[in-house]
Formats: sequence, structure tokens, C-alpha cells
Amino acid sequence: MARYRILIEFDGSNYCGWQSQPNGVSIQDTIARAIEGLSGTFARPIAAGRTDAGVHALALPAHFDLPNDPERSANDVQNALNHYLRIRDETISIHGTLRVGDDFHARHDTVRRHYLYRIVSADAPPALQAQRVLHLYRPLALTPMQEAAATLIGEHDFSSFRAAGCQADGPVRVLESLSVAYAPTDDFSRDSSLEIIIRASAPSFLYNQVRIIVGTLILVGLQRWSPEQVALALAARNRAAAGPTAPPHGLYFLTGSARNGEPPQGGQCPQP
Amino acid sequence: MARYRILIEFDGSNYCGWQSQPNGVSIQDTIARAIEGLSGTFARPIAAGRTDAGVHALALPAHFDLPNDPERSANDVQNALNHYLRIRDETISIHGTLRVGDDFHARHDTVRRHYLYRIVSADAPPALQAQRVLHLYRPLALTPMQEAAATLIGEHDFSSFRAAGCQADGPVRVLESLSVAYAPTDDFSRDSSLEIIIRASAPSFLYNQVRIIVGTLILVGLQRWSPEQVALALAARNRAAAGPTAPPHGLYFLTGSARNGEPPQGGQCPQP
Repeated sequence: MARYRILIEFDGSNYCGWQSQPNGVSIQDTIARAIEGLSGTFARPIAAGRTDAGVHALALPAHFDLPNDPERSANDVQNALNHYLRIRDETISIHGTLRVGDDFHARHDTVRRHYLYRIVSADAPPALQAQRVLHLYRPLALTPMQEAAATLIGEHDFSSFRAAGCQADGPVRVLESLSVAYAPTDDFSRDSSLEIIIRASAPSFLYNQVRIIVGTLILVGLQRWSPEQVALALAARNRAAAGPTAPPHGLYFLTGSARNGEPPQGGQCPQP
Repeated sequence: MARYRILIEFDGSNYCGWQSQPNGVSIQDTIARAIEGLSGTFARPIAAGRTDAGVHALALPAHFDLPNDPERSANDVQNALNHYLRIRDETISIHGTLRVGDDFHARHDTVRRHYLYRIVSADAPPALQAQRVLHLYRPLALTPMQEAAATLIGEHDFSSFRAAGCQADGPVRVLESLSVAYAPTDDFSRDSSLEIIIRASAPSFLYNQVRIIVGTLILVGLQRWSPEQVALALAARNRAAAGPTAPPHGLYFLTGSARNGEPPQGGQCPQP
């Protein structure tokens, strides 16, 4: 067998999430069908993270095996997968393809995950970015959000920020960075709109951890909660103490960092 | 009657273009139906420009009339239109709504149009921006594109850059600015991808003028044409002398400038 690492970009709007499911079209199975188109064998890729329905990705690392015979270059594999995805109008693209050793494992060898969440405050909903950003009518106050975010950085018991159904072995995680910043205005920003970007990096996250953190920071940005309440919510170790889970469609799996100390692959280096 | 000016943002992927057509769902009729939801009367808005199928807009100015009774604030009108658009899952949003005098006319009172075209060069097609940018596998050379663009600026007979079926009275137009620049890389740029943005501003454009200019500049960026050939194509005053028409999905109607000298409304000021 020959193992390939791919990076996956997708618009998650039309899928039931990463993971293969009995009902619903998953990203994993959609790529497995493209692999089948190429090699004749339906082979599910293994990814560095499992995203929920509606969540997007820029450079999600994954791996899969193909028969050794015929030999296929990484470039040929990538072009073939993109061909089979495109003829089915999938909103998935494969990039950064590498031939890797049989011991490479996309989940185990990704030692740091980087997520990004987009929030646009504007008096009219977005059209071009409708399923790509969370829209709020009210503006968010940046400084208290930044203060609140600072209280979450580091190694903590994140039970308050862990959804029911989380399969992780324990609630302790190391949140290495969590930043809140204005996005630079560009041609696609309206005069009165304001976009805030929240970035989070950690070796691993609990189920829905980023979305619950974002939902809680939004309460602070709306000035319903003080930054101190976020520290108290963390200390409570109880999901009911934190804010709501933010919707999936503002969330992006940005990229993963590889074990060998390489910089994050396939996307720009996230600025903490 | 009470007249309202609106600015329209839309993802043009799912529409047959701005203009009402017997077959196909137009943006004009979709907004007319939202107006009908609000007032009971199907009223087609008049816009500052007529975009083709697949072309997008950020802040296309338009106007329409509503009965005076009941009186409706601009804010109420905007929220109602966005409500009727959203319940039908339209990728259209209304912003910048103003109550204006009966003499305001979105087409006549928009004295300058600003367009933008996005081209991404990457070895894998985009997924999140699939219908929002033109994808090329090969990179474009910026400097010769800029040299070629400079030869098109000013008042010229643009017959070579005018599609068949153009209803304008003559081929002479004043191209006030035409710039070619790299887009800043952001979180959504892949390591190896390169985005070029072409901006064009003029009091008015001929049919498909921007897309033919872009298609011609791409030939220069691919180094199949020299910048001098673009000047010769312009001088030929013959559509066959210019390059192909670039696809619609990279094109955005950015915004319009109003007669009274106000800055472009509803979007960021385009940088020439």
C-alpha cells in the first residue's frame, strides 16, 4: 500500500459533518467516493479532526492508502481526487498532497489544531458570506472579549466548555492561544459592518469546545457578562455555567501543525 | 408614492442575472417579490447596473416606490425586505436603505461604477470560494498586466471590448481607473496560492467591457500577449482583436458613486 497525506478545504454547508453517518452525506464518505473513482476501492480517509455539520475547513490534514500498483505521484492523486469531486459539484478541494510513510497518521501526527471563528456585526445580514460567518445585528465590544479570552488560556479543566457526548478521556486541555481581533476591512466589508475574528490553538480540543468558548465570549462582547464571569464559569466545571454553543457556520478548521516541528501546513500561519 | 434607495449585496450564482427574464429567476424579480411581500404590490426595482448571470454585487444601488400610506421608515422597509428574502433562502441582502425624493433615479444618479474581479492561481481549485473567484492553475505575471492596463485608461473607442448585443449608443467610454494588484494574503489563502484583484471604475461601461478587459489582461499575465498587443487590440476597434470574455463568477459590482459628489456608498472606497 502507498499512503498519502492530503489537506482538505471544504465549505461544510452541504454536509452532515466530517464523520461517516448512516443518514446524511459526510465529507469523509464524499472523499472516499472520490478515492473509489480513482482506484476502484472505497477507502475512508482519516482526518486530524472531526468537524460538525456546517463547519468549514481550510487545510484539514488527512491520510488514506492506495494500492501500490500502479504507482501514483502525489500530483496525479490530487488532480484525480479534485476531478471526481468537481464532476459531482462537491464543495470540497484537495491540496497539499504528499506521499508519506506507512507510519504517518493524520490524527496522531497532528500535534496542534488551529481554529478560527468569524462574527460580522451589521444592520443587514450578509449575502455573499451568509453560510460562512455568524451574523449579529449588534456590535461586540472587543476589549472585554479579549480580557475574558485571556482567562481561558493555559491548562484547565474545561468541563464547562465541553458538550454532552464528548468522547475525550478527560476534561483537561491546554489552550495555547485564544485571540480576539478585528478583521481588516476589505472591499467586501460594508461601511457600517464590523468583523471580529476569534482564533484558538491547542494540541486538541474537547467536543464543541471552540463553539462554546465563542458563544460565551459573545455574551461578554454584548456586555451581558463581565470578563470575570467567564473565569467563574471555567472554575465551575459545569457545562451549564458557560454560555451557549455558537452556531457551526462561523467556524473553520484552519490547519494543523505536524509532529516534526514544521510550521502549520497548507494555510497561512495563524497569528496568535 | 414614497421612493426608497437600497444597496443590494448578492451572490449571483443562483440567478439568471439582474434583469427580469421570461425564463429564469432574476435578482430584479426576486426583490420585486420581496417588495410584494411587504406592500402587496409586485414592483420591480431599477438598478444602477444590469449584471449577468453569475456576477456578484456588494452594494448595487437601486430604487423603487411604495404607497405613501402607511408611512414606512427606511429601517422598517429594509428589515421587511430582508425578512422576505431570507425566508425564501435567497442569497440577496438589502442594506443602506434611504428614503429619497421622487426625482432620485438609481441609474441616472449613479455617476460612476466600480467593479472588481478576483483571480486565484493555485494548484488545486478553491472550495469555499468556488463560485466567487476565477481559478487558474498557472500564476499570472503582475507587472505586464499593470503595463497593459495602463494603456486602456482614459477616453477611448472600446469597440474591441464590447460584446455583441451591447445596447449602448456608442463605443466611446472613459475608463477612469484600471488597476491590477495582489490581494493581501489572509487566513483563507493557501501557501502556494496567489490572488490578483483587478479594479475598474468608469462613469459607465459597455456590455461585458470589464470581463473582456480581464480576459485580455489574463493573456498578458500568462505571457501569451505582450502589453503592446493590448494597445493594438484597442486601436483595432474590433471585438475579434481583443481576448476572450472572462467568466462571470469572478466579477463583482462593487459600488456606485452618487451624483452629488458623495463618496461611494455602502462599501469601502475602492482604491484605484
